[in-house]
Amino acid sequence: MRGWILLCLLVVCAWGCALRSSPAPPKWAVAIHGGAGTIERASMTPETDAAYRAALSAALETAGKVLREGGSSLDAVETVIRLMEDDPLFNAGRGAVFTAAGRNELDASIMDGATLNTGAVAGVTRTRHPITLARAVMEKSPHVMMAGEGADSFAQQQRLEMVDPSFFFTERRWQELEKTLKEQGDPIPARPAGAPKPQSSVSAQSAGEHKFGTVGVVALDSRGNVAAGTSTGGTTGKRWGRVGDSPIIGAGTYASNQSCAVSGTGVGEFFIRLTVAREICALVQYKNYGVQQAADEVIQKRLSALKGTGGVIVISPKGEIAWSFNTSGMYRAKMSAAAPAQISIFKEEP
Amino acid sequence: MRGWILLCLLVVCAWGCALRSSPAPPKWAVAIHGGAGTIERASMTPETDAAYRAALSAALETAGKVLREGGSSLDAVETVIRLMEDDPLFNAGRGAVFTAAGRNELDASIMDGATLNTGAVAGVTRTRHPITLARAVMEKSPHVMMAGEGADSFAQQQRLEMVDPSFFFTERRWQELEKTLKEQGDPIPARPAGAPKPQSSVSAQSAGEHKFGTVGVVALDSRGNVAAGTSTGGTTGKRWGRVGDSPIIGAGTYASNQSCAVSGTGVGEFFIRLTVAREICALVQYKNYGVQQAADEVIQKRLSALKGTGGVIVISPKGEIAWSFNTSGMYRAKMSAAAPAQISIFKEEP
Repeated sequence: MRGWILLCLLVVCAWGCALRSSPAPPKWAVAIHGGAGTIERASMTPETDAAYRAALSAALETAGKVLREGGSSLDAVETVIRLMEDDPLFNAGRGAVFTAAGRNELDASIMDGATLNTGAVAGVTRTRHPITLARAVMEKSPHVMMAGEGADSFAQQQRLEMVDPSFFFTERRWQELEKTLKEQGDPIPARPAGAPKPQSSVSAQSAGEHKFGTVGVVALDSRGNVAAGTSTGGTTGKRWGRVGDSPIIGAGTYASNQSCAVSGTGVGEFFIRLTVAREICALVQYKNYGVQQAADEVIQKRLSALKGTGGVIVISPKGEIAWSFNTSGMYRAKMSAAAPAQISIFKEEP
Repeated sequence: MRGWILLCLLVVCAWGCALRSSPAPPKWAVAIHGGAGTIERASMTPETDAAYRAALSAALETAGKVLREGGSSLDAVETVIRLMEDDPLFNAGRGAVFTAAGRNELDASIMDGATLNTGAVAGVTRTRHPITLARAVMEKSPHVMMAGEGADSFAQQQRLEMVDPSFFFTERRWQELEKTLKEQGDPIPARPAGAPKPQSSVSAQSAGEHKFGTVGVVALDSRGNVAAGTSTGGTTGKRWGRVGDSPIIGAGTYASNQSCAVSGTGVGEFFIRLTVAREICALVQYKNYGVQQAADEVIQKRLSALKGTGGVIVISPKGEIAWSFNTSGMYRAKMSAAAPAQISIFKEEP
């Protein structure tokens, strides 16, 4: 009898030790990006630097509030991306880059890692928050992806906030388009109807440096569910109804509780070819890679081998966060229930 | 000295044996599908059955000719899909289903397993061969995916064959749309401009049975390169610029010499959520699954678990061919340098 009691005690002790040796995952965690590209300390003013850090800090705080209060990872992703879509600093929603025809054509997607439910939109022009439309496609339609005017019509039918296309206009992006088209020797389209009168030239720095600027969020909530979302205006001067990776599930966005959640930013064509987001999660799921190792394998090795550029943020259902990019910078931030906010821009930052 | 010669001979012998023990892959191989769905022997006339088998046989012959003569797998994929796009039997190109607005909006994609180059188009309405446009996007543009009118403009600029949208009109598909919209209590749009005068009702059988009909080809060429392509009109009565899996790289189409090439058909929403095509190839690449095992895992288990329906064809760089579907039938065919043509429609066929 005493032998049995001793054995039981031993088992309980061993169990306790095992529990302690693998610490409980944080109750929630979040990572955010605001685009990767040629972002160098030498060419960024202190004001611009501070503006991006403040925007990322506000985004983290918003995410933290949702997640601390028990909100879902989907809610955190959508809420933060709405905020960033409204911020002209980023190439998403207001502040999106222009197509060669002088339009803002917006792409977004969202994915729920618990159910693999997902929604995506491409080329919308009248919906204020493309990420909310992506979520409506996921939750309120039998479809997963909608494009063009049809997607805007669905938004209207769902009573989402609609705006005049000129809502998305920013002077900086317009001058960026003019510069790009001039360099290519292409005609410059008429200034869009409803746009404010031309302003004096914005600084070359702010026009040149923001080649990318896609936004994305990955989050883990207290129920252990991961989610991912991405929103973008695409690339300056894009033509022919070009669709990038942001609305392509498996390329720019992916989430599964069985592996991880990813949002990407960069030259979308390479992200589609490499199915970057799904690839990272496949390495986690099938090869037992850690999220950092998987992200580095796909971004530093495979993306670089194709001469593609960009970056990703990754989160696992255990709350591990990774980011990886092969550009000189990526606007990025992370925070969890167990770790304070960290905001970084340049490569040499952690 | 004699010792060295003996050693060299031994090495050469061992090498020869090793080569012989894994038989050389067939010089070329191809698999084709013409859609999966509720296709049952009891409800198909002998004439319809014969028409599909003849079309699949012609498609195989076309692929065989390209590949036997040393053509690339990309050429085989494009050539066969062009043929099927012109055949009103299939839901691709001429014979595509109609949107709720009474339009034919066509999607296609193609991928080169040797380079991971790829091209995709969504929602084109004026380009006769969407698969050729997808290839032009891949080879003649800096982009990977184009949508809507922009994609048609690019086709025109590339001097591809353009047609009036009414070219894609078929009476059978129109009556299918009318039937679908009536059942849903939705308004029936005006008959498209340029469409021929209404004909007497086509048989209910031929209207009901072809719920799907996407076409796809996977091929291996004599240089050991795999390729995949898919072309579709989507689903009858689709709305809001709905995009399915066919133009989504990793969902409806994927090809990599490191794993396999896949083309899918079915309810595209599920194929996107599961990144079906990339998933099958990931299981081959990372878990050493055979192509049949990988296809069955994703289609019979995961797709069925989500209550999705459809099927895939798969080819490996070794020339192994697999198909898998969870519907009552899939129009399908395969052939290789080492094996004669096999054409099947119903589940109970091999």
